[in-house]
Parts: sequence; structure tokens; C-alpha cells
Amino acid sequence: MAIKQIRACRPWPDAEVEEREMSASLTRKLIDGHLVGGEAAPGEEIALAIDQTLTQDATGTLVMQELEAMGLDRARTEVSVQYVDHNLLQADERNAEDHAFLRSAARRYGLWFSKPGNGVSHPTHMQRFGVPGKTMVGSDSHTCAAGSLGMLAIGVGGLEVAMAIAGEPLYLRMPEIWGVKLTGRLPDWVSAKDVILEMLRRHGVKGATNRIIEYHGPGLTGLSAMDRHVIANMGAELGATTTVFPADDAVSEFLRAEGREDDFVELAADPGAGYDLTDEIDLSTLEPLIARPSSPGNVVPVREVAGEPVSQVVVGSSANPGLRDFAMVAAMVNGRQASDAVSFDVNPSSREIFEDLTRMGATFELIAAGARIHQAGCMGCIGMGQAPAVGHNSLRTFPRNFPGRSGTKEDRVWLCSPETAAAAALTGVITDPRDLAAKLDMAPPALKLPEKASINTSMLVAPLPGAQARREKLERGPNISRLPDPEPLPESLRVPVLLKMGDDVSTDEISPAGARALPYRSNIPELAEFTFAGVDEAYPAKARDTGPHAVVAGDNYGQGSSREHAAITARYLGLAVVIARSFARIHWQNLANFGVLALEFTDGGDLDDIDLGDELEIDDVGAVVRRSAEVTVRNATKGREYQVRHRLSPRQVEAVLAGGRIVTLDGRPGLAG
Amino acid sequence: MAIKQIRACRPWPDAEVEEREMSASLTRKLIDGHLVGGEAAPGEEIALAIDQTLTQDATGTLVMQELEAMGLDRARTEVSVQYVDHNLLQADERNAEDHAFLRSAARRYGLWFSKPGNGVSHPTHMQRFGVPGKTMVGSDSHTCAAGSLGMLAIGVGGLEVAMAIAGEPLYLRMPEIWGVKLTGRLPDWVSAKDVILEMLRRHGVKGATNRIIEYHGPGLTGLSAMDRHVIANMGAELGATTTVFPADDAVSEFLRAEGREDDFVELAADPGAGYDLTDEIDLSTLEPLIARPSSPGNVVPVREVAGEPVSQVVVGSSANPGLRDFAMVAAMVNGRQASDAVSFDVNPSSREIFEDLTRMGATFELIAAGARIHQAGCMGCIGMGQAPAVGHNSLRTFPRNFPGRSGTKEDRVWLCSPETAAAAALTGVITDPRDLAAKLDMAPPALKLPEKASINTSMLVAPLPGAQARREKLERGPNISRLPDPEPLPESLRVPVLLKMGDDVSTDEISPAGARALPYRSNIPELAEFTFAGVDEAYPAKARDTGPHAVVAGDNYGQGSSREHAAITARYLGLAVVIARSFARIHWQNLANFGVLALEFTDGGDLDDIDLGDELEIDDVGAVVRRSAEVTVRNATKGREYQVRHRLSPRQVEAVLAGGRIVTLDGRPGLAG
Repeated sequence: MAIKQIRACRPWPDAEVEEREMSASLTRKLIDGHLVGGEAAPGEEIALAIDQTLTQDATGTLVMQELEAMGLDRARTEVSVQYVDHNLLQADERNAEDHAFLRSAARRYGLWFSKPGNGVSHPTHMQRFGVPGKTMVGSDSHTCAAGSLGMLAIGVGGLEVAMAIAGEPLYLRMPEIWGVKLTGRLPDWVSAKDVILEMLRRHGVKGATNRIIEYHGPGLTGLSAMDRHVIANMGAELGATTTVFPADDAVSEFLRAEGREDDFVELAADPGAGYDLTDEIDLSTLEPLIARPSSPGNVVPVREVAGEPVSQVVVGSSANPGLRDFAMVAAMVNGRQASDAVSFDVNPSSREIFEDLTRMGATFELIAAGARIHQAGCMGCIGMGQAPAVGHNSLRTFPRNFPGRSGTKEDRVWLCSPETAAAAALTGVITDPRDLAAKLDMAPPALKLPEKASINTSMLVAPLPGAQARREKLERGPNISRLPDPEPLPESLRVPVLLKMGDDVSTDEISPAGARALPYRSNIPELAEFTFAGVDEAYPAKARDTGPHAVVAGDNYGQGSSREHAAITARYLGLAVVIARSFARIHWQNLANFGVLALEFTDGGDLDDIDLGDELEIDDVGAVVRRSAEVTVRNATKGREYQVRHRLSPRQVEAVLAGGRIVTLDGRPGLAG
Repeated sequence: MAIKQIRACRPWPDAEVEEREMSASLTRKLIDGHLVGGEAAPGEEIALAIDQTLTQDATGTLVMQELEAMGLDRARTEVSVQYVDHNLLQADERNAEDHAFLRSAARRYGLWFSKPGNGVSHPTHMQRFGVPGKTMVGSDSHTCAAGSLGMLAIGVGGLEVAMAIAGEPLYLRMPEIWGVKLTGRLPDWVSAKDVILEMLRRHGVKGATNRIIEYHGPGLTGLSAMDRHVIANMGAELGATTTVFPADDAVSEFLRAEGREDDFVELAADPGAGYDLTDEIDLSTLEPLIARPSSPGNVVPVREVAGEPVSQVVVGSSANPGLRDFAMVAAMVNGRQASDAVSFDVNPSSREIFEDLTRMGATFELIAAGARIHQAGCMGCIGMGQAPAVGHNSLRTFPRNFPGRSGTKEDRVWLCSPETAAAAALTGVITDPRDLAAKLDMAPPALKLPEKASINTSMLVAPLPGAQARREKLERGPNISRLPDPEPLPESLRVPVLLKMGDDVSTDEISPAGARALPYRSNIPELAEFTFAGVDEAYPAKARDTGPHAVVAGDNYGQGSSREHAAITARYLGLAVVIARSFARIHWQNLANFGVLALEFTDGGDLDDIDLGDELEIDDVGAVVRRSAEVTVRNATKGREYQVRHRLSPRQVEAVLAGGRIVTLDGRPGLAG
């Protein structure tokens, strides 16, 4: 049974193995194989042993500071990799200082270091480190992409990753497992991106909150491991905890191409496995889809919006990172020319894929067709470059189009497949690739991808041996701050409401990425000046004037990126309480980690009753939240009361009351909770 | 005689042809062939007919606004090209808005439009438009690079370019002609960059002020047209008005490779031509050279600084733009790996060169060796990306290393050849490529460059026909301001000194490039906030508080880039008078164009007498400067007087007094002067 193999990978000393019933889902097998605490029933807190970690630069500088605060000697995981893929613009010295700091920290703590330009963490990790059956946490919400290989890979806040690097388990509420059966084969001009866009069309950006999506069924045979990466990656956009695919022939083929056939482990759900929820997609019925501005959930068929003028087409990112995706675009534009009106931007997702593309001639075809080729990395996906003009449509193969995420405040970003992107690059208007094919009499390209990838680890620097690592000093440039000291919650909360927000507020709106803010990701006092920039630019000044305060919001508060900065900077400015109708998973965890009390309305309608400036009160808050998940909040301004609940475990309650999970014990850094 | 052919290219109706003496330099022939006013004697104002213009985006948005202010209907030059090569980062919507504005202006006024990503203006212009014997002005100080083809190509302020586009001649003081004889052949591992670094080592950054450098002699046979581009381009760093090379077999070969053999015209100095000054370089005696931080004039042999640790190596820019330069780097790193400690950045200089590099396999070799490949453009050269960390050495094949120009305030940028750059990329320390070759037993690469370039004009959009052009509207996004109204100089000047500066202050220090400021190049009020950022960040606030004011400086004030923003933004903030020991040519002209009175100390020692806050006075300034070039300035604070001179022609005097050359006549835009 596969479960045995998984456990064999990394026995967890304290783990108590539970006997599972037969006919388990693969997800359940992966969880059971790593369970070191709790009971794997939906809603219960469980603790999972973590085999691998992934950090990227925009979140990793804090993780490295957390390791430093913990006094860690050396990483205790099987594999921990520090990638540099987000902040590559280097508009001033700050990005390069972060790179130098991260390099020194990777050397000090025994991490792999993926140099700037080596590529986006997710495809690179899949290529070089992904192993079926392993668990991984990553300080990036798209960490879930590794589910494409049969891993249980979860995007979390930086502190969870730091704990995992230190050998601690990951705590989370056991999600529901959602079995999605795939049947049929994708038609020509329809590809993996359209599968996940179909999921988003059906279920919206909250559709998979507190769920793990497990794909299964005969339709999988037509999807390569990289196709599955596309689908697993954007599970984040559905709000999923993660996505799991079986490790089958497609995975075996992928690992063989990467020279890692020995890492292959066959993994699948048991026949007839049960799921908490189910859905089914007949791939043969899909058509090209596109997400309209400004949410990944605004999905419509391409044909419904055909003819809209397009000024920019961008190909790349972790959402469509595969060689196949770029090669498809190259084949479609080969011998043709991008429209005069279009900036046709190509962001190779990794050094390896760029090398392969070049080897097979696709780079040449792209350049000849008028593509702007950018360095391998995330770039435009997080607004580090390629921002479009206001009012101009930009079509992207990216995962997200939250308002302003492109770097342009009033942007019009659409999300689509490589096929749809290439069609628009050629015509200058949104175009169903099937219509383009008919017009140009273009047959679906028969792509000939190399059987063996250009394996080259020159930009991936191995961990130093322990003795040498211990001699390394952290290189802390002027822009690298230290973590602020945690401050305990006051005994009684009396806080005014500084912001009132609607549904689906993203962490991009709470703590923006983009070229202005990202250089300060290592510098909490400076970064704090951007807090809630996407909601109210006056917030930092108001917060400083006010002191401890609350914000209120609608559903799915804190969706999107995993950045713990969205919790830390607000906390730094005095945010004590967030009351929302519901929270996105990672941001909720980050709030708990950094001492912000996150509360949910029992009656969502109460949100409407609260106005800016209302004074909210909870007396003796410590005793109250220790006693019960049900809490009463008094609106002193209006003289009314609201029932709310916290979802904190006793462990988390103590962390929040103490002001966060990293605390100073006996005058030295240590861990609470 | 070649002169006849030149005139045949574009007869200038009002030109009076002067009989030249025999044995003329090529420079003199080019000037005589285009002279439409004045006498070509050193120091006299001459007027030259202009055949071609070049604008880039960072300066071009103002040029287009100037065309609009003039009410131009259509470009009157043979060729005018609007390039987009500087502002490609698109960190927010402003860059893309500039691109849309420039595209609309090119369509409206009948210009060619080189799309973002098509490459750096200078090599691209050389490849597609350069014609021996033609004159060109460009709003970029490296316009002189086209001297490599036997053109007379001069970098000037944007307003001169706008005037040239409108069919007006270029006015300038006739420079001295400096004949530099080249003999011998370059040794292995020494290349064109070392030739211009040798000129800088000998003569410094003021060595060619008010001079045109003309290279001649048997050493030319070993230098390709692109090698000459390297040397001509960085003539700007010597302060030269421009550089001229003969149009000989090397130029013929270049044009043939570009499919433009019909554009070749053989041009050379007459045998025994006389020069105002002379110098000679025996190429066989040169060795690898490098300019230390932070001036192109700080040149030393590489071996003297060998062993310095290097964190970044950047290959590209208009200073080393040729296929050969990149191919040399690729050949040296082929099969090897960039040092772990180095970020190895490659900036292809044009789409065409990138396509050729890819076709010949060099792109593959660079990627495999760990290079970060960036989109074709100027990027790091003007601080739009790839800024190094503070205190970390960056080796670049770029033309300039003025303080902070990289985007990093306390940067350590060195300038060197592609060979020296590649050696450092491999070793991680400054390395003489000859030593590396000896150590690795590496033979000098025998480069096999394609005989025919990848000619592809897909990103170079031709002018619209007149009727269609007239229907085009300028696309003016929120970040595109209008030119400020000119304000006449007051009758009597009484102005305090707000800044006192030393020698060699560059326009980078007066109006910085870089990722923060460049997005505001179309927006004078916003850009003004960066004025003198490299000298005194409090200047904008002080200037606004003060009103009309003066600044004083040492030698070579305003060296470097041609940006007229350095004059306009200071003028906008109230700068009325600059008194310096001497001025760099283009900035001096820009000050005159925008109504700032530029004065030179007769006795340079008087600078030492002036302190910040001193009140300087010139009574009845209009009458004084009209009457004589010699002017007396009274220091009312100290009770002393200084003799100064202006070098303005009567035409320029009126322009300065009127507040600049663009004035509103009879309620409609028009031209003064």
C-alpha cells in the first residue's frame, strides 16, 4: 500500500499511526502518512509532519528573520529551498540587498538557494525537488502547485514555514476532501487553464475554501504533469487548502525527463474512494474560457467577449509555466507577427524551461514574431514590471487579476490560456483561438517537446556543510529590518472601527505587491506605510493617530497571496481585531500568528450595522476567548451587541493573547504555542 | 568628390555653398555639405541642415509635446524615428502611458515608431536607417554613435530635435576637429571598448569638449562598423560634440549584412587632411582597461585592480551593442558557469541582435552558463532595473558610471569590455581576460557571425500616410503633462545662490534617471520634485520657497545625458542663472532653450568666493547681455564683483530673455529665435 511508502520517506518519531478504513482518497493517505497530532476529521485541528519547504524572496526575508529570532542552527527538513523569483526588477539597491541577505541566510541555515533568474519557485521546485507522497509548506499561496506530482503541498504564512524548517509540524483544521472526477479529452485549442477556469466559473473564488481538491478519473490520462500544475496552482484561486493529483504514468514521465526517475512513487486513491464532496468535468465539453477584470472568478467563454481591443498580452507565471505552454504560443505565432497595437511579453518561468525553449527553436520564433522576452521569474504577475496603461486591456496567462495587482491602479487584466493569449497577440483583439485557426487555416500545432529536459543546476546552490554554515554571517543591508517585538493584547478591548470593507478583499489590497512596495518586504516599518493602500491610503496615518483599532469586512477576507506582511504591518500599526463574515485560510492563520484577533459574525447581517468610527468593546478578552469560541462584541457607539466566534485552537488562543507566536522566553528568542 | 554625393542627398534650398580648400577632413566635408548658415570656423555659430532625427522615450515625450506646441503638421526630415528603449520596466501604468502617447504622436506626425522591446535606439538606427554622409540630431547624448557609419550625428536637447523635425537647421558653435590616427591591430582579449577607455584614460571626461573626433589611419581596417560604434558612442563620455569615422569597406560590409548595400556611400578625409588637433593610438599596445567607480574617466589597467570581488556583471547597452560583443561573452562562458556569487545579467541591445544571437546558439550558451537574459533595451544603463546592492561591485559594458546612475545611491559601478566582463562573471573577481585565458588554456574565440543579419522590421512601424496621420489624436494619459509656459527673465536679477557644486556635475545628478524618476519624464510638475536629487534633496522645497535663484558650479557642468528635463525642471522651480567655470555642450544649449542664463567665470577662482545664500545681482540684464558677452555680476552679500561671460548668439540672447525658445505668438504656438 502506498501509505507505507510515504511513511518510509520520513518517519515522524512521535507520530501515532491511526488505522485507516480502506478505500481512502489519496489526500487522506497523504495526511494519514504525515499525521503527528489530532484526528483527521473535517474541522478538527491536525498536526502534519513536513518534509520540504519552499520560500520565495518576497516572503522569505521574514522567514529568515524568524529563523534568526528562533535561534535555529540548521534546517531539519529533508529539503528546504529559498527561491528568488519575485523581486527581480532591482529598481534600486533594495532588491539586491534582499538577495544578498537571503543568500547569506540560506548558507547559514543549510538551505538550497535558487539564484535570481533561476525561475519561479513552483515549476523549478517541481522540476528539481518534487517527490510524490511528500508534504511541503511554502510561504507562497501557489505552493499547492506541487500537488501535480502527488504531493500534499500547502501555502501558508511565513511563520508556519519557519516552524517547519525548524522541524515543527504544521497545524491546520482538517479540510473537507473534494473529489473532482475528470472524464473525456480536451478538444483542440482548449488546455489545462480552461479546466481550472471552468472550476472557477462553476464555483467562484470561495468555492473550495477549507477544502482539498483531489482530481481523479479517466480524463487524467490526457493531462501531463505540467498541465496538472496549471490546475493545482490555481486551486489557490478557488480558496482551496491545496489540490492533489495522483502520481501516475504522467508523473513518472515527467520525473524521467528531469533525470529523477528514482524519485517516482506510484500513488493513487483506492478504487471507490469516498469524498466529502464530489464534482465531475467532462473535458471534451470545455471551450476556451477567460476571466474578465478584476477577479479570477469572473469567467466567461472567450467567444462572448471576442473583439475587445487588447494592448498587452503576457505569457508566463506559475499558472502556465510549462515548456508546452510557451511552445504552443511560439508555434502559433511562428512566421506571423504580433499586432502593432500589442505589447507581446513573454516571461519564461524557469531557466531550465527557457533553455529548453531556446534549444527547440521556440525562443527564436517568439523573438521573430515581436515578443519582448523577460528574465525568468514572476515579474508582472505581482506587479513587478509590465504594468499596462490605464483603461487598456491586458490578457495574461497568470493566476490572478485582483484590482491593481498588475501595478496599475485601474487596470483591466484578463486571465486566459496560452492559446487564447497567442490569438490576441496576433489579432490585437480578444479572439477565440478556434476562430483564429479557422480564419488562418491553422492546424493545432503538433508540439515536439524534448524527451529530456536541459537539466542544469548551476543557479541552484546546494546547502553548505554544517561546520562551514555555522561560520556564515547574515548579510543585513540597510533595508533589512528586524521583526517588531510582539505586544500582548490588552486585557479589555475598546477599539474604534477604522475600515469597513466588502467581500473578497485580497492581501494585495491589504499589503500591496508591486514595484513600489515590494522592495520594502524586509522592512516592516517602511512597508507599513503601504498598509491597506488598496482600500484607504490614509489608513497608516489614521492608525498611528488612533492606536489599537478594529476593521470589519465581508466574506473571504484576506484571499490571495500568503504574505504574512498583510498581518504584521497592520498589527504594527495597531490593528487588534478583525471581524469579518468569513476569512481566507492563510491570512486567518497569519493574523493568529501575529496576535490579531480574528472573529467571524454569527449573523453576517450585523456587518451592515457597524459604521466607521463605531467603538467596539470586549471586556476581559483573554478570559472570554479562553472560555469559549462564542464571543459577544459590544458596539458602544450604537449600544448594540453582536455574536461572533473565533476559530482558534487553545494553542492559537494563547499565541494571539501573547501578541504572536514568536516570543522572547527568559530573555532569549523562542517559540510559543 | 564625396562632398557632391552628400549634397545630392538633400539639397538645402537656402544654402550657400562655400568653396572649401582641398585636403579636407571628413568632418569638414560633412559640415560643408550641410551648412546653411554661418562660417565653419571654430567657435562661430553655424547652421546645419538635418537629414534624420532620433528620439527615445525618456526625452521623446517632451519632443512630441514641443511638436504639438509648434502646431507641426508633419515631419519634414528624410527619416525621423521615435524609439522606446529607456522606460521598459513598467513598474506602474506611467511607462505604458508614455508608450501609448509616443505611438499616437508618431502616427500623428509621420514618424517611424520603434516599439518597446525593439531595442536601443543607437544600434537599431544604425542597422535600419544609418546612411553615410547624412546628418542626424537625436535627443540622446549617444546619438553620436552613428558616426560609426560616416554620419554627422549629434546628441542635442529635445527642442533642437523638435526644430529639426520641423525642418529647421541645427545651430551650434563650430567645434574644433580632432584627428586621431589609429595604427596597428588590437591584441587578443583587447577590443573596441579598450580603445575608447584609452582615450578616456589619456584625456578624461572633458578631453573632447567642443571638439569633433575624427578617427583615421591604417588601424581602422581591423575595426568593424560595430566596433566603431563602441568608440563613437562613448565619445560622449569625452565631452565630444560627435565622432566621425570614414565610410569604408567595413561600413559597406555592415550595410550589406543589413540588406542595405544600396545605402552605402564611400566617404573619407582627403589624403593629408589637416586637423585642429591630433593624437595617435597604436592599437597593438593596448591592454584591457577598466573605469573605476564613479566616472568614465577613472581608467586603469584591469590588472591593477584584479582580485576585487564582483557581485554583478552586466553585458549590453549602446556602448557594447554589437552581435560580436554578446557572442564573445557567450563563447567565453560556453560550457562554464557564472560564479555563485555573481548575478550575470545580459541585456540584448536590439531585437535583431537577440534574434541573431539565438539563431547562432549564443543565447543558449548564455542561459546555460547562468545568465539572466533581459528584454532588449537600455534598462540598467539608466537605472531602470538591475540596480546593485550598496557596496557591491558591479562590472558593466555600459558607457557611464556616474554616481547613483545605476539606481543605487552609493553604487560601485565599473566600466569595461565584454571580455573583461565575461572573465569576472566566471571568476567572481575582477580578472584580466588574458590571465583567465592563460589559466583555463582558453584560445581567443574564433567567432562565426552570420553574414546576413536577421532583418525583421515587425517592431518598427512605418509612418502613416499624411491624410490618415492628420486624423490621429494624441493619446494623452493622466501622466502626460503639457509644457510649462515660458516666463521672461525679470528686468533686473537679484537672486540668492541655492546650490554650490564642484566639477563634472552630470545631468543624472541634476535630474535623475532611474526607476523612481523616469516614469515622470512626461510630467514636468511631478518630475520637478526630483530636481538636483543627486546634489541636495531639499532643493525643490527650497527653490519653491525662494522663487528666482541662482546655482554655481565648477567645470564641465551638466555633463552626460542630453535630457532637457535637467533645464526645464530647474527652470520650473525658479532657476534663473547658472554660473559655472565651464559647461557641457548639450546642457548649456538646453539652458538657453528654456530661458536659464548660463554664465562662465572669467576667473574660475571666483567660484571659491561665493557661498550658499549669497545674493547675486545683474541690473538691467536684458540690455547688458544684448550689449556684450562680458557681464559683471555683483555679490551684494559680500560687496564684491565677478567678471563672467555668456556665449550666447544674438538669436539665443533673445530666446533666453523671452524665457525660452517656444513662445506663444499672437495667441497661437510658434517659434522664437
